[in-house]
Amino acid sequence: MKKKLKKVNAAILIIGNEILSGRTQDKNIAFISNWLNQKCGISIKEVRIIPDEARTIIENTRLLSKKFNYVFTTGGIGPTHDDITAQSISKAFRLKYEYHKEAYEILETYYGKEKFNDGRKKMAKMPRGSKLIYNPSSAAPGFMTKNVFSLPGVPSILNSMIENCKIYLKKGLKTYSKTINLQTVESNISKKLSFIQNKYKNKVDIGSYPFFRLGKVRVSLVTRSSSKRYLNIIDKEIRNLIKDKNIKILKINLKNN
Amino acid sequence: MKKKLKKVNAAILIIGNEILSGRTQDKNIAFISNWLNQKCGISIKEVRIIPDEARTIIENTRLLSKKFNYVFTTGGIGPTHDDITAQSISKAFRLKYEYHKEAYEILETYYGKEKFNDGRKKMAKMPRGSKLIYNPSSAAPGFMTKNVFSLPGVPSILNSMIENCKIYLKKGLKTYSKTINLQTVESNISKKLSFIQNKYKNKVDIGSYPFFRLGKVRVSLVTRSSSKRYLNIIDKEIRNLIKDKNIKILKINLKNN
Repeated sequence: MKKKLKKVNAAILIIGNEILSGRTQDKNIAFISNWLNQKCGISIKEVRIIPDEARTIIENTRLLSKKFNYVFTTGGIGPTHDDITAQSISKAFRLKYEYHKEAYEILETYYGKEKFNDGRKKMAKMPRGSKLIYNPSSAAPGFMTKNVFSLPGVPSILNSMIENCKIYLKKGLKTYSKTINLQTVESNISKKLSFIQNKYKNKVDIGSYPFFRLGKVRVSLVTRSSSKRYLNIIDKEIRNLIKDKNIKILKINLKNN
Repeated sequence: MKKKLKKVNAAILIIGNEILSGRTQDKNIAFISNWLNQKCGISIKEVRIIPDEARTIIENTRLLSKKFNYVFTTGGIGPTHDDITAQSISKAFRLKYEYHKEAYEILETYYGKEKFNDGRKKMAKMPRGSKLIYNPSSAAPGFMTKNVFSLPGVPSILNSMIENCKIYLKKGLKTYSKTINLQTVESNISKKLSFIQNKYKNKVDIGSYPFFRLGKVRVSLVTRSSSKRYLNIIDKEIRNLIKDKNIKILKINLKNN
């Protein structure tokens, strides 16, 4: 018999002054969230973006690690002075901040003994007992400490590493979704939509999002649920609403996000 | 005599399941943060992305409104059932959720009496005593309640409204920044950089960010400060470091973010 899956959630903690200041446009949130849902059935329930400050990283790590099944941090695991994620997570969990033997060996082999300077050695230091998340792009591994996964901030490197988190994650219920784009405005359907949402309150989430096409406002209706059955039931209700109001369907999409 | 400006900070609270799920890539954080710094000298110190859940919106509004000079919320102020920002902020501050007379008139004029249905009327309801943030794109105004600014989630509409927040904001110290892209790797400069950062700890922030160009890793050094004088002083120190190590400068940028 197949084991019944439960809901599993997670938070993302983006560590980086460059995202807060608007210098860098974040690309990791959408990537991590989509990957977690598609591959592991894990839903992101909160994201925080914070500066490179030890106290703030420590507080947020403790709080999010208690509140959610998993936490994914991005940024701050490189060789420079502003990379303080590993030290801060050590402090958050009162674990020794020390060289990880395997990480040290990986980096020493990658750079060669002579070029393995202090900055590079720093990338082998992490909270005692951390498990490695291997890095196929640039060697320096990420690490898992308790339920917290620490990944780098550079999107291309993060993307190449995320598959290596999978072995540590327990699978949860995947969220399925369906998007219907309509040639109407939100206020035309808001009353009936609210009625349908109330009817299936804890089964399906309905999101209504306006968008622009050729200077006109349109609506994207997104239904989300961990039950395909309920997604089909609510789809029928929405089709009836569309038919009653004589609204043109522009596009249907099954993207599951 | 010119009044001396102080540091003014703010947080952004993104309200929206569609951002958390990875369906929609956020574009508002970088825009708001850049605008606030350039136009008002206000620095974003924290961002949170949360679901469309009343309890979560209420808790976060209260907390961030106490912790920072200003809070900017995005999303959840449209006509549909999942738009619950105005109700939730009313609850957060224990204010009556009611029609705002001027907002009602603006919307009634915009849609015309006959097409001013319940969904559209909902967009005129807000916490008692809120001040309007006018919307030149699609009429429905945002609102300021205490120190919290509520804006829509659609980037093009938000962008067109942000200038109308200015009259309510007190000006702070602008952050200036300078970016130097170098043909080297982080670990080559990390030791000296750490020394420079320590020397000017509370005056200038140095960020070091790796990036890729033609398959090679490079470094962006970003110095940030509210003092142009200190930015120049630290620039000299960094120029010396670059000269000592014989590193090629690829690009210099004064973007202030």
